Amino acid sequence: MAAPNLDWKQIAAAKKVQQGLTIPKEWIIKDLPSKETLNVVDIPETCGILTPKEIQITTSSVSLLLKNLAEAVWSSVEVTTAFAKRAVIAHQLVNCLTEVFIERALERAAQLDEILKSTGKVVGPLHGLPVSLKDQFHIKDIETTMGYVSWVGKKPTRNSVLVDILEASGAVLYVKTNVPQTLMWLESFNWVFGRTTNPWNRSLTAGGSSGGEGALLALKGSPLGVGTDVAGSIRIPAAFNGLYGLRPSIGRVSFAGNVTCLEGHDGLPLVVGPLAPSIEALKVFMKSVAEKKPWIIDSLTIRKPWNEQEYNLVDHGGKGGKLCFAIMWDDQFVRPHPPVVRGLMETKKALLAAGHSVVDWVPQVKHIDLIAAIGAMWAAGAMQDFIEAVAPSNEPIIKSMKLEGEDPAYVPDDIPGFRLSEGMPAYELWKHQKKRQDLRQEYLEHWNATVSATGTGRPVDAIISPCAPFVAPPHGGSTYINYMGVWNALDYVALTIPTGLSVDPKLDVPVARQDFFNDLDKANHELYNPQLYRNAPIGIQVVGRNLEEEAVLAMGGIVDEALKAYLSTA
Amino acid sequence: MAAPNLDWKQIAAAKKVQQGLTIPKEWIIKDLPSKETLNVVDIPETCGILTPKEIQITTSSVSLLLKNLAEAVWSSVEVTTAFAKRAVIAHQLVNCLTEVFIERALERAAQLDEILKSTGKVVGPLHGLPVSLKDQFHIKDIETTMGYVSWVGKKPTRNSVLVDILEASGAVLYVKTNVPQTLMWLESFNWVFGRTTNPWNRSLTAGGSSGGEGALLALKGSPLGVGTDVAGSIRIPAAFNGLYGLRPSIGRVSFAGNVTCLEGHDGLPLVVGPLAPSIEALKVFMKSVAEKKPWIIDSLTIRKPWNEQEYNLVDHGGKGGKLCFAIMWDDQFVRPHPPVVRGLMETKKALLAAGHSVVDWVPQVKHIDLIAAIGAMWAAGAMQDFIEAVAPSNEPIIKSMKLEGEDPAYVPDDIPGFRLSEGMPAYELWKHQKKRQDLRQEYLEHWNATVSATGTGRPVDAIISPCAPFVAPPHGGSTYINYMGVWNALDYVALTIPTGLSVDPKLDVPVARQDFFNDLDKANHELYNPQLYRNAPIGIQVVGRNLEEEAVLAMGGIVDEALKAYLSTA
Repeated sequence: MAAPNLDWKQIAAAKKVQQGLTIPKEWIIKDLPSKETLNVVDIPETCGILTPKEIQITTSSVSLLLKNLAEAVWSSVEVTTAFAKRAVIAHQLVNCLTEVFIERALERAAQLDEILKSTGKVVGPLHGLPVSLKDQFHIKDIETTMGYVSWVGKKPTRNSVLVDILEASGAVLYVKTNVPQTLMWLESFNWVFGRTTNPWNRSLTAGGSSGGEGALLALKGSPLGVGTDVAGSIRIPAAFNGLYGLRPSIGRVSFAGNVTCLEGHDGLPLVVGPLAPSIEALKVFMKSVAEKKPWIIDSLTIRKPWNEQEYNLVDHGGKGGKLCFAIMWDDQFVRPHPPVVRGLMETKKALLAAGHSVVDWVPQVKHIDLIAAIGAMWAAGAMQDFIEAVAPSNEPIIKSMKLEGEDPAYVPDDIPGFRLSEGMPAYELWKHQKKRQDLRQEYLEHWNATVSATGTGRPVDAIISPCAPFVAPPHGGSTYINYMGVWNALDYVALTIPTGLSVDPKLDVPVARQDFFNDLDKANHELYNPQLYRNAPIGIQVVGRNLEEEAVLAMGGIVDEALKAYLSTA
Repeated sequence: MAAPNLDWKQIAAAKKVQQGLTIPKEWIIKDLPSKETLNVVDIPETCGILTPKEIQITTSSVSLLLKNLAEAVWSSVEVTTAFAKRAVIAHQLVNCLTEVFIERALERAAQLDEILKSTGKVVGPLHGLPVSLKDQFHIKDIETTMGYVSWVGKKPTRNSVLVDILEASGAVLYVKTNVPQTLMWLESFNWVFGRTTNPWNRSLTAGGSSGGEGALLALKGSPLGVGTDVAGSIRIPAAFNGLYGLRPSIGRVSFAGNVTCLEGHDGLPLVVGPLAPSIEALKVFMKSVAEKKPWIIDSLTIRKPWNEQEYNLVDHGGKGGKLCFAIMWDDQFVRPHPPVVRGLMETKKALLAAGHSVVDWVPQVKHIDLIAAIGAMWAAGAMQDFIEAVAPSNEPIIKSMKLEGEDPAYVPDDIPGFRLSEGMPAYELWKHQKKRQDLRQEYLEHWNATVSATGTGRPVDAIISPCAPFVAPPHGGSTYINYMGVWNALDYVALTIPTGLSVDPKLDVPVARQDFFNDLDKANHELYNPQLYRNAPIGIQVVGRNLEEEAVLAMGGIVDEALKAYLSTA
């Protein structure tokens, strides 16, 4: 534990020094690009630290990595070293890591290599694969600070259930990644580790709360990352960094034994899910973890094995059949910027070209009502939770993700309501929870009623939605959660996929608008400037029903292939 | 709606008159037994109202009923008439019904008969079978009062999801059954319909909150009933009336579109489950309902089809294998009365005789801590919920289930705390919810650790637990919820089965005790008097893990058969 006579700034500074000591000196980039260098995506491969083989390893698909690891073509020590080096390089560019424990990882990798050599067998489906974790997962003897100065020095005495499962599956843990203080932001800044920036354009946010994962994965410093999502915290970093990210339904992936914010908030618990450079890697994660029957060892995980039939789309006309996707162009509250609309338009063309049908998704249930319900559910106790968390160190509660927000005295005008709420009586919370339940049922009935409009004999198979009304915005700008939060409110499975497109000032010109839904919509419209967002990846969401992870991964794969095929010929 | 100028007593009285009019006059028992006649179980068959065929029908197993209905050996009109008559007879003896809609049911039965005749096919697995419902389920145009005078006259404009599913499966709905005001009692008394009594001994309670179901089923006025359970409300009426009752895990059976108390209390929602005279009937219900994929139409139902492999005990060594049961003799807080202990002892002998192994269950996690957590979770808003519900009619909130409690002015000394709680801030509720989560995880770890003591290579397969520290007690005495509530707190699947034994003053003599866990234990001990409980059935619980309904039904079947075999030879 940090010495009690240090103030919070000293504790944070000491922790940063400590972090620096965990980074091998030979992996320090000599000629760090200047702050004006915005796009740093190519630097890991040009900085001279990685060998050609390490570049080959870190740019391989997860299935090739697992195959080569299982066949001892590459050792786990080699693979772990390659990703660890690249992670450390990434960190110097975008400040994405919190805990770095490469020595421990290499020991573990060597053990796995030895087991494979002596038994001829892999220990599990992830044998030898490095996996990065958001700094919320408990690994024995490694700190979990979760962005709080108050938590510096706290070392868990045991692994969480998921960490046990990953290790039993053969994964090699080697780094943990950055988050925002309180976790309740879609960006990643805290007083301990500072701000994570976007590798495609460092003047933009990497998103959050799993922002460290997003930035690390975009720079290929990890082949597979694990995040959590209560209102977009997996999907926003995936979208902003050009990645795939899955928000499973509540209880599908084990969370027992870790830490989070708003503890005890049973109404809308967070979910654990993977971020990766491919859908295939997401499937590997989901299937591997389910194989360990987490419901036997985690009291909040649902007894639902991986279902290959559902992955083969048994509930959606079977493999290879025609699907009907519904595109939500906007949420009738804040209309997306031109690049987001272009992403949806190209997706539509790609799906039609692939032979699927596409209809419009017009929500009959107002998304803003769902957001209001879950917003009130957070407001019920969030502020007390934050106050309690910062109390031991006396660090200020962060009130903005803007650059000015790095000044502890900064208090912006536009703090989202729940952060300063004084809470409410439990009975009032129940009313909001009931309202949300009713809206969920109404939404489902609306979905089912689409059966008359699809032409497939089934209701819409999946919804395609924006991730946000913007691509990765400048720091402090990722404040509109509704395109994410609505799927949490409904507990639908939601998958972010990159369209393969990014902001191009020539294509994504501002569009004049006369009518606005409201002032927020107008303000968002006026923010748009293609130069500002240059190079930002354009993502979309593919959304399915509750606990339909298998089908959403399969349908997401279909969308992904359709986009790739269409854009390669367009 | 009731005229607004009537006071609550007048509204209740008018409703009772209205109820009387729904009962066919020819089914009125001419020589009602006096109040001193305590055991009325035989009266339906001796009162002269049922024909021999009707007696045959109403004493048939559910599988024979369904077979004969499907093969048109018996028409649904015949079967429905038989059960409706017997239900009305039961009602006159123990006051178990609320809504009676026989005409509607017979029309529906005639339609089903016609469909079978014209198509040669059943409409579903419950074709033609009468099913009774607790007065909490919404059937279009039929009142749901749920024990509140305030709700008299409220007619739902649509069926709930489960009612739709039951009808689509071929069920014939014909009566709804009594509950306590607020639902938060393990007995059944309210100002609208009065008190339901126990058919085995009318000086005892029928239990609650699904008490009407318990009493009705014990008198064979229904072959299959549906109740709800938030702290024993299915299992206590099953235990007190000599029936089988299943508490599934949260979300396994659809609840959308009905009404309940403590709406929006997401931390520990109620569950829907069946009560019946056999385990087989419980399985028929669970399987039939799952076949309709309720998760497609109910936003809170879990995507988990009926799993025949799990029913074949794939997770418990396979069908026909040796199981290890753990018996919990007491909860280390209130020790059960002699008949309850005899039930457990006979169960142990029966299981050993059947070749299974039996160990003791000694909870390492204190049950009282789990009960305290969920008690606080209810207390967070229960009183405000009750106050809001009674406000329109101004009926008094019932403060005791004792006979004196029928006087609105009666205020007992020993009102359980949460009923008068003034609520708490939401953040405090979160703390209790977190505490409960932690205890759940701890409990599961304790269960898993039993692997070293079972000799099967698996942890304990199922826990066998008392249902209460007493069998059906005199009215007002069913106040100790812990043997039930603990399984709700853990969200384990819990099944009540009757041992086939009932209180026998010769066998169940009082046992002297010197040491007590606490004053409550002592007071409960002193209450015991075998004459008082004469004829009360002795039930036990078989408890499995979360969402393990299939395995619990199968293991319950094994316990049931073992008991029957053992007791027939003992």
